[in-house]
Amino acid sequence: MKIVIALDSFKGSCSVKAACQSVANGFQRVSKNLDLSLLPVSDGGEGLLEALEHSSVLKDVQQHQFICTGPYGQTIESKLLTLAGNIGVIELAECCGLELTPKTERNPEHASSYGLGQAVKKAMDLGCTKIIIGLGGSATNDGGAGFAQALGAEFYSVGKQRISRPITGGDLISLESIEINELDERIKHIDFYASCDVTNPLLGPTGATYVYGGQKGATGVALDRLEAGMRHYAHLMHQVYGKDCANEPGAGAAGGMGAALKWFLSAKLDSGIALVLSLIGAESYIRQADLVIVGEGRLDSQSANGKAPVGVARMARKHGVPVVAICGGYSEDSTALYDEGISAMWSICPGPVTLEEAMKNGEKNIANTAENLLRTILPFSKSEKSNL
Amino acid sequence: MKIVIALDSFKGSCSVKAACQSVANGFQRVSKNLDLSLLPVSDGGEGLLEALEHSSVLKDVQQHQFICTGPYGQTIESKLLTLAGNIGVIELAECCGLELTPKTERNPEHASSYGLGQAVKKAMDLGCTKIIIGLGGSATNDGGAGFAQALGAEFYSVGKQRISRPITGGDLISLESIEINELDERIKHIDFYASCDVTNPLLGPTGATYVYGGQKGATGVALDRLEAGMRHYAHLMHQVYGKDCANEPGAGAAGGMGAALKWFLSAKLDSGIALVLSLIGAESYIRQADLVIVGEGRLDSQSANGKAPVGVARMARKHGVPVVAICGGYSEDSTALYDEGISAMWSICPGPVTLEEAMKNGEKNIANTAENLLRTILPFSKSEKSNL
Repeated sequence: MKIVIALDSFKGSCSVKAACQSVANGFQRVSKNLDLSLLPVSDGGEGLLEALEHSSVLKDVQQHQFICTGPYGQTIESKLLTLAGNIGVIELAECCGLELTPKTERNPEHASSYGLGQAVKKAMDLGCTKIIIGLGGSATNDGGAGFAQALGAEFYSVGKQRISRPITGGDLISLESIEINELDERIKHIDFYASCDVTNPLLGPTGATYVYGGQKGATGVALDRLEAGMRHYAHLMHQVYGKDCANEPGAGAAGGMGAALKWFLSAKLDSGIALVLSLIGAESYIRQADLVIVGEGRLDSQSANGKAPVGVARMARKHGVPVVAICGGYSEDSTALYDEGISAMWSICPGPVTLEEAMKNGEKNIANTAENLLRTILPFSKSEKSNL
Repeated sequence: MKIVIALDSFKGSCSVKAACQSVANGFQRVSKNLDLSLLPVSDGGEGLLEALEHSSVLKDVQQHQFICTGPYGQTIESKLLTLAGNIGVIELAECCGLELTPKTERNPEHASSYGLGQAVKKAMDLGCTKIIIGLGGSATNDGGAGFAQALGAEFYSVGKQRISRPITGGDLISLESIEINELDERIKHIDFYASCDVTNPLLGPTGATYVYGGQKGATGVALDRLEAGMRHYAHLMHQVYGKDCANEPGAGAAGGMGAALKWFLSAKLDSGIALVLSLIGAESYIRQADLVIVGEGRLDSQSANGKAPVGVARMARKHGVPVVAICGGYSEDSTALYDEGISAMWSICPGPVTLEEAMKNGEKNIANTAENLLRTILPFSKSEKSNL
């Protein structure tokens, strides 16, 4: 029996590696005679690198550590991955993520995406010709100006003063000009992809600032100042590149990084799970599988919007392969996911438990659930002789 | 696909009828092309009549209502069932059960099993030649003396005073003699069976009084008085019948009713679920099934001791039929049930919930679980073309 195990992490309870391994452990209690492929997945945001690192199917995955400037100027040790085929994979959250700085010290007026530019540079130094950037979980609202600055773009404030420290969201309002002559030449020869599961534009009530600024630490008039700066910046960028990327779907992702990736790198934005599935060559495994297991901490009808389990399920459905989802909990409306290729869904809770208990026992409960799942299926399976 | 649905009730949440019907409802959301047999089961104690009444496979089930004397002398409306073949089924809890009287008014020194004798009489009046009595949940500790009195046995206190009101546990100590000449003649021609899943003797530290007296409302010296009375009664009965039933396994069931059934009726005691399965002819359905669903509120390793799901599972295992258990919750040690024929077990909880929430949503959660179960199995089933 060929089974693909393609879970996402159970956030706060169980890493993506542990989740997939626990399913495998539960299965192996029932039968040793299984062909298991562990394809930890991620929705392309936080956890992207971890998922790829623990894939049982990816070869030549190398982790490279480097020092970069964090969102608030701190020095941080970051990492990226290289894969076979000169592919580099970068996770925004590892360079300028929200979680790198304590909550009380966050203020997107002072945060910069500079570190992400350094990561791209590092990937180019390593010879990558295709670079994938996982967006999501950003601390910044600088329109990707800091990011571009690290790659050679020059930002001038009033009086033609070049800003030498990392540009922040608060700097945008006082920019006089942007120059891209010194932008790293290599970016022209590289294919850039970024994971993006939102469609927000750069500006306005549904834009980067007003939708996501609050959760990054800005409130009230600070949001208004950030929006005004972003608007001014978009105006300048329009002039520099002669094109308006501000209204493209996803321009408002990651504090305007979506727009910057379009302007500076001509990057292609795609659904995170689609990028991940393509990177790990998931289709060749899923196509041949008898069963695919997906899962994450919580399933609801919103999971259809770019979440990993549904991305995997849609691919499996194409090939007529049944998909069972394992989750911490599912909501009433999650039955909508049946239409997305998820055949059935199971909570790992063994009975009435508190969230805290459920979180604490994630790995054990996942393994027990997997055991019961295989015990449920095996008597009906054609490809496996049941000996239960 | 032939499926036998043989759940017990989810006590406090969902009746046995609703539990089985909810499973059927969940299944039918997935496929209309199923051959479902609803065989609600019970462990032979409380809920026995309800399970049999809602069986989709029993024919000629008739309910008969009658008035009897409750455990504390109250007048209660009780019921029994007759089945094809002159079979009568009586549930002790419906005649002298603990739940018939508010907790604050319970005291087994004043409780009598008289009503159960009236029920047997009613069954004989209806022409039954085989009578099944479901023990369990009794309010009494009278050694079945009240029961026998209703059938014609005579109990005399000091001075050869015949006791005319229903005998209680507290009366036993002052008995002078017991006479059985006036015992209803018909009992000699009837086969009596009683469900009994305990092995307690009548007397001593593991006997009826000290093990079960407390939960019926007796404490401290009251227990000692009851035990002394029971011992005296056993001594008299030994003289009357020339045999000692006090040490037989199950003699201590239902406040000594086990011993009375042996002495007065020569009844056969058997496991409750075995009696139920035999009554409903379960084996002929289970033998032909592709899948059997069992379930009850809670599963743990103790469920192996006479609980309905395990009784059904053992029968299914004999015929190589997979059994999936659905429950409110299962405990860590319930994996022991895999060895009893339960292939897999699933909690109906959709995530972390309180016991109260789980109880409230029993029917809905059972149906959803059944839906997910069939959705899990169907892609692997030979007998059903999956169209998920």
